[in-house]
Amino acid sequence: MKTVIYNGILVTMNREMAVYQNGYVAVEDGTIAAAGPAEELEAKYGRNFQEDKSLGIHWRDAGGGIIMPGMVNTHCHMSMIPFRGLGDDCKDRLRVFLLPMEEKAMDRELAVLAGRYGICELLLAGVTTVMDMYYYAGDLAGVMDEMGIRGIEGETVMDQPTCDAKTPREAVAAAAEAMERYRGHDRVSVCLSPHGTTTCSKELLRLCYDMDRDFNLPFTLHTAEMDYEMAHLRETLGLGAVEYLDHIGVLGKNTLAAHAIQVSPREIRLLAERGASVAHCIGSNTKAAKGVAPVKEMTEAGVAVGLGTDGPASGNTLDLFTQMRFCANFHKNTLRDRGAFPAKDIVSLATIGGARALGLEMVTGSLETGKAADIVVVETDSANMFPVYDPYAALVYSAQAANVRDVYVAGKCLVEDKKLVKADLREARQALEEKMLETEFAGYFPGR
Amino acid sequence: MKTVIYNGILVTMNREMAVYQNGYVAVEDGTIAAAGPAEELEAKYGRNFQEDKSLGIHWRDAGGGIIMPGMVNTHCHMSMIPFRGLGDDCKDRLRVFLLPMEEKAMDRELAVLAGRYGICELLLAGVTTVMDMYYYAGDLAGVMDEMGIRGIEGETVMDQPTCDAKTPREAVAAAAEAMERYRGHDRVSVCLSPHGTTTCSKELLRLCYDMDRDFNLPFTLHTAEMDYEMAHLRETLGLGAVEYLDHIGVLGKNTLAAHAIQVSPREIRLLAERGASVAHCIGSNTKAAKGVAPVKEMTEAGVAVGLGTDGPASGNTLDLFTQMRFCANFHKNTLRDRGAFPAKDIVSLATIGGARALGLEMVTGSLETGKAADIVVVETDSANMFPVYDPYAALVYSAQAANVRDVYVAGKCLVEDKKLVKADLREARQALEEKMLETEFAGYFPGR
Repeated sequence: MKTVIYNGILVTMNREMAVYQNGYVAVEDGTIAAAGPAEELEAKYGRNFQEDKSLGIHWRDAGGGIIMPGMVNTHCHMSMIPFRGLGDDCKDRLRVFLLPMEEKAMDRELAVLAGRYGICELLLAGVTTVMDMYYYAGDLAGVMDEMGIRGIEGETVMDQPTCDAKTPREAVAAAAEAMERYRGHDRVSVCLSPHGTTTCSKELLRLCYDMDRDFNLPFTLHTAEMDYEMAHLRETLGLGAVEYLDHIGVLGKNTLAAHAIQVSPREIRLLAERGASVAHCIGSNTKAAKGVAPVKEMTEAGVAVGLGTDGPASGNTLDLFTQMRFCANFHKNTLRDRGAFPAKDIVSLATIGGARALGLEMVTGSLETGKAADIVVVETDSANMFPVYDPYAALVYSAQAANVRDVYVAGKCLVEDKKLVKADLREARQALEEKMLETEFAGYFPGR
Repeated sequence: MKTVIYNGILVTMNREMAVYQNGYVAVEDGTIAAAGPAEELEAKYGRNFQEDKSLGIHWRDAGGGIIMPGMVNTHCHMSMIPFRGLGDDCKDRLRVFLLPMEEKAMDRELAVLAGRYGICELLLAGVTTVMDMYYYAGDLAGVMDEMGIRGIEGETVMDQPTCDAKTPREAVAAAAEAMERYRGHDRVSVCLSPHGTTTCSKELLRLCYDMDRDFNLPFTLHTAEMDYEMAHLRETLGLGAVEYLDHIGVLGKNTLAAHAIQVSPREIRLLAERGASVAHCIGSNTKAAKGVAPVKEMTEAGVAVGLGTDGPASGNTLDLFTQMRFCANFHKNTLRDRGAFPAKDIVSLATIGGARALGLEMVTGSLETGKAADIVVVETDSANMFPVYDPYAALVYSAQAANVRDVYVAGKCLVEDKKLVKADLREARQALEEKMLETEFAGYFPGR
């Protein structure tokens, strides 16, 4: 069965950044069969193409909205949904709320239920690919598979006991099994994601790096994010965080540095030379008062940069519209240049840039023949979406997550008319809430 | 007829900042008759109060959402909707796009049609009070009246011909007539809003100030926003923009400085001493790379600060959710303190703070007995709105404009279940679009 999405402004994000004011995408067997201007459809199927039911084509009218590639969230911790809004403005939130609650309440079932809820939110917001990082990676990969999203689940390992492993060795072993299990899967994979540059020994970092590289998957970790991290590396080794990764031999094409806020010009060159990538989490970083990563310098140096929401405990919402708007305003204001980071470049970070950062640029991130049919339709009927002179500007400066109308991953329609097709948000929430109320989280629910 | 909104988290924004996990608001004759915990309803009407139809009460179930005061947008140019997204990233956008298009295409009809559309957008986003500033003020006040929103329309005057007046004298005369016409109106008023500190003579500024003060209405103007403005005042008089306003005798209780980005500590004290207010437009300011106004210092000095979206040509969307989130992240990051500007204080800026800034704190901005029934229900059913530990955090860090479910102004339900009750968004858009296509704007519509 072939699906053709038509009657929309087609934003391809291909190499030529082609935009068609009246465009279409044809999908066959989960793949983009063609994408271009409506005239191509008319030439092939005649003027009233959408009325022809004999062709076995499912015609989907985009209603004049924007047809764009599914967005790529390059850094997330989906299963932290239960932490969203907990101690947001507390200075030592990590130690007061997050770590103790993770220890007391997090288990496989909660991680899975929260992950399922998180995927509902991602899909409804037009995110079709997510690089997630949490515990119980094999189980969360299973949820990704079941939900139909494209994703990489990174098993978080560190040199201390976690909710799913008494030792890093145990975590690595469980992840290794899951990595094997998902080898060759067309949408989902599992990798090893060490927690950060100073919370893992260099032996552990090297082990993870080697395994991720063998599977050709991202080796992603929190990098150059925290003051304590920077101080420790500076004091013990006289190095920046990126320099340290290079120093111990884990900075390469598969390395995806999450955050990368405090990086020197020398380290930006190093990222570029090694072919490493960056997951830019502007909303989370600035909410936590950690500063603005030098993304202009990174992209100019040729570093692949994608956008990330970070976990809902830090960035709150999992959509990239919020991140795109933050990205524009923070970088323009920091650079004191309203022309910096034009909307087109920001949509690029949220789509093909993210795909590049994850090593998935041959699979997703743009609407081109042969790529997976990861497609989003953003409606322009809502009050905030008129007029549209430039679809990039509308996506960055005007759109909100709720404008996402349809979402396809690998050709499967997962969101239609702003509703999940396969999953049920109410059920996902109810199951998660019931589980939360059985745990220590119940104590934070007011009035229960 | 009495309306009771119940079964929601009641965020009153009253002096005690009372929050009721299960609260209600009772509305009678456009006014808040009572607001408090559900127990009060049960004591008065019995346990199954909402089933009692004999009382002549319209029971409105908030569905577990957040019941909050209608939001106050303290700086807007609604009628610039046709300019939204036009040349967003162009460095000299004002001179390349805005001024020429305003000269070529703006007239009474376009201003009215765009204003009507803008009010649709404001209401759907939970803004119940707007301080707008544009041309044809009397006509726009008429649109506010017709649409049911609460608003003050400021006639923009300056020392050069505008689209509605050949001379400032002409603009003042037309505005004076409209000011009289709306004197004593319960929701809508008209004032004089000089364009800015350097685009108006001191005589014109004093004339406007005196008239606005006589009507006890805001005297609002662009202040300390532009580099050319700062340079001019510094070079000619050696003064900052706020100092200049004081110097010429127009800094008082009615003065509402829009933007107020480049103000010195001395000027912040001056604002406080004179009882002047500030409309903080963080989204517009940072998108234009103009910097972050020192709002912490202002509020600490006792200056009333409200949030403003600025016009859609500058800030793009007219909702305050976007502004609240920008506000949190920009101030926390600028102050290098994640605990700064807690969510509660930001919701305060968007509601009671804005009401204070407009001199309307006895009328709106909080849910208290005797105030006008300007009420918003924000649903918490959408994916981004779970869990809610703290309604302030949910409103600032998680909510988007599309979460607004119901909106009441002066007790009248203007938005119900995310749809306009009186107005029709499609019709408003169609009329505006048709008019735009008859003007110079048509040239910017791609593919037409």
